[in-house]
Amino acid sequence: MVAKVISGTEIARSIEDELRQQVSELRAQSSGAQPRLAIVQVGGREDSNVYIRMKLKAAENIGILAEHVRLPRDCTQTELLTKLTALNESPQVHGIIVQMPLDSEHQIDSHLITDAVSSHKDVDGLNTENEGRVAIGDFSGFVPCTPAGCIELIKRTGVSIAGKRAVVLGRSRIVGTPVAELLKWEHATVTVCHSKTNDLSEITKTADILVVAIGRAEMVRGSWIKPGAIVIDCGINPIPDATKKSGQRLVGDVAYSEAVQVAGHVTPVPGGVGPLTVAMLMRNTVLAARRQLQRLLLPAWPLQ
Amino acid sequence: MVAKVISGTEIARSIEDELRQQVSELRAQSSGAQPRLAIVQVGGREDSNVYIRMKLKAAENIGILAEHVRLPRDCTQTELLTKLTALNESPQVHGIIVQMPLDSEHQIDSHLITDAVSSHKDVDGLNTENEGRVAIGDFSGFVPCTPAGCIELIKRTGVSIAGKRAVVLGRSRIVGTPVAELLKWEHATVTVCHSKTNDLSEITKTADILVVAIGRAEMVRGSWIKPGAIVIDCGINPIPDATKKSGQRLVGDVAYSEAVQVAGHVTPVPGGVGPLTVAMLMRNTVLAARRQLQRLLLPAWPLQ
Ligand SMILES: NC(=O)C1=CN([C@@H]2O[C@H](COP(=O)(O)OP(=O)(O)OC[C@H]3O[C@@H](n4cnc5c(N)ncnc54)[C@H](OP(=O)(O)O)[C@@H]3O)[C@@H](O)[C@H]2O)C=CC1
Ligand SMILES: NC(=O)C1=CN([C@@H]2O[C@H](COP(=O)(O)OP(=O)(O)OC[C@H]3O[C@@H](n4cnc5c(N)ncnc54)[C@H](OP(=O)(O)O)[C@@H]3O)[C@@H](O)[C@H]2O)C=CC1
Repeated sequence: MVAKVISGTEIARSIEDELRQQVSELRAQSSGAQPRLAIVQVGGREDSNVYIRMKLKAAENIGILAEHVRLPRDCTQTELLTKLTALNESPQVHGIIVQMPLDSEHQIDSHLITDAVSSHKDVDGLNTENEGRVAIGDFSGFVPCTPAGCIELIKRTGVSIAGKRAVVLGRSRIVGTPVAELLKWEHATVTVCHSKTNDLSEITKTADILVVAIGRAEMVRGSWIKPGAIVIDCGINPIPDATKKSGQRLVGDVAYSEAVQVAGHVTPVPGGVGPLTVAMLMRNTVLAARRQLQRLLLPAWPLQ
Repeated sequence: MVAKVISGTEIARSIEDELRQQVSELRAQSSGAQPRLAIVQVGGREDSNVYIRMKLKAAENIGILAEHVRLPRDCTQTELLTKLTALNESPQVHGIIVQMPLDSEHQIDSHLITDAVSSHKDVDGLNTENEGRVAIGDFSGFVPCTPAGCIELIKRTGVSIAGKRAVVLGRSRIVGTPVAELLKWEHATVTVCHSKTNDLSEITKTADILVVAIGRAEMVRGSWIKPGAIVIDCGINPIPDATKKSGQRLVGDVAYSEAVQVAGHVTPVPGGVGPLTVAMLMRNTVLAARRQLQRLLLPAWPLQ
């Protein structure tokens, strides 16, 4: 069997096309109001610069006004919080993300920072309250971007999720935990694995849907995969490659050339989960703008 | 093999003994301040009355001042919210719970109600934000009582959780979801099952630790259980029993007489998870009181 490759790049493009349409309708309905996203960066890590450029480009393509807010490496936690308060309070700004990891000379509590973004503008979906919503199946907030992207990729295969066995490798706040919750509310039977899991390759082999988010280059081998399974690879790992100008290339957490021989569907790296993460951020930003513009139209004291 | 019976009643008693000691120390340190719990009830369901009596009795035994706040069946959502605001603001009250289900003539959104309890006083641990904390392994809030009780029961067997296969039947906000999160952060490899799960009895048989919270009388049979497993039965189901004065008796979600032949450890119903739920509520109330009294001693403007 040779797996179908799930093209994140193409799916993201089609989502961005829909969003461009939605933005122009929104502008028509609300006398030109444009969704606006603030991307806050502390310091200047090169990988962060690359991710931010991708987000700015997608936003421009869709018609979202994206503002890159740069804070210097000597920015303190208090200064960052002050900036976030100003953005939270600004009626012009609909979505706010803080690019992680923070590149500061000072100690900054990143958990505190993600919780400092107003829940109405938390388009990365990383507030603790929002994580709680996702865990209990309440989707009235914002679904975190990478996990939402994983679900979108699975759905686009046409295979239904309900009743399937899903295995998630990784339990991080950003990827593993919420992706497992989302799969649970799509009615899969979900197993979460992590670094303390025994017999990992036995468990992965029970998965009809396997989502991998561990940050270990090509750790998941072909022999770990159930024939015909859907394999979603979130990993982004640089490995040395002398044939490249940069001296390195990116690989996922799954050994792609092996997976493609066993799986039914598989995402490549790059070009799989990455583009979807950006597309889901854009979707959340449009949603945030729509909700906030709608709220402006409500009576100030709605009847209970 | 005949399973060891895990006596929730005895374990709860020993926890309550420790708490009584802690309360008397707290009173000595804080010129007599006593932990105080408000139990809010709307209407007068008989099962709720029974649960509330158990909570009041445990509180009295420990030295917690428990106040039973009764609201009539014609209480509206707004009236209930007003009462909760007053309790949230009262410096005398350390913990607040709202007994579910609400027995009101009016439509009341129970989700909104549990989220209206101040997160500092949410000793049932049912706030959405708190659920988010549990999901990502942050235990700085209050761990929900029944799930915390399940973990306590498992730990008291002496069997270590890390690296074990755990299966949770049920994904509710109150039991299934948080118990799965807690097991995950105790480093078990956790599978969550629900009504859309296929081959349920095959999956339960992989469990070294099986937690059942489905509300289906004796659905889990002996043949579903891995020999030697720990079985925690959260179910409380009344079934007809002509030999009882009341005409009924309580059974769990597990067929106890069968489970006891297969499992290594098993909880009875009643006398298993139930008493632990009450003990964990008391533990959270003492914790809430300690945190709030400590906050009174802090400088008003701590340095950042
Ligand atoms: N495509 C995108 O847009 C994004 C991609 N990523 C990528 O996804 C990957 C994961 O990211 P993130 O979740 O933030 O990473 P974290 O490092 O926060 O979490 C990694 C998780 O994997 C588990 N793990 C690590 N090693 C093993 C192992 N040998 N066996 C089993 N489990 C293991 C860890 O377990 P434990 O909890 O026990 O330590 C942890 O739960 C990375 O490659 C990252 O670059 C991340 C975000 C966005
Ligand atoms: N000891 C104590 O103090 C407490 C005990 N309880 C008891 O625990 C039990 C569960 O309570 P709670 O979680 O509130 O109940 P809920 O009804 O809210 O949730 C039941 C869960 O079980 C799942 N389920 C139902 N039927 C099946 C089935 N046939 N196969 C597989 N899964 C099934 C449901 O799946 P789906 O999501 O697909 O519908 C749901 O996730 C009850 O008996 C309750 O009385 C509850 C709280 C405290």
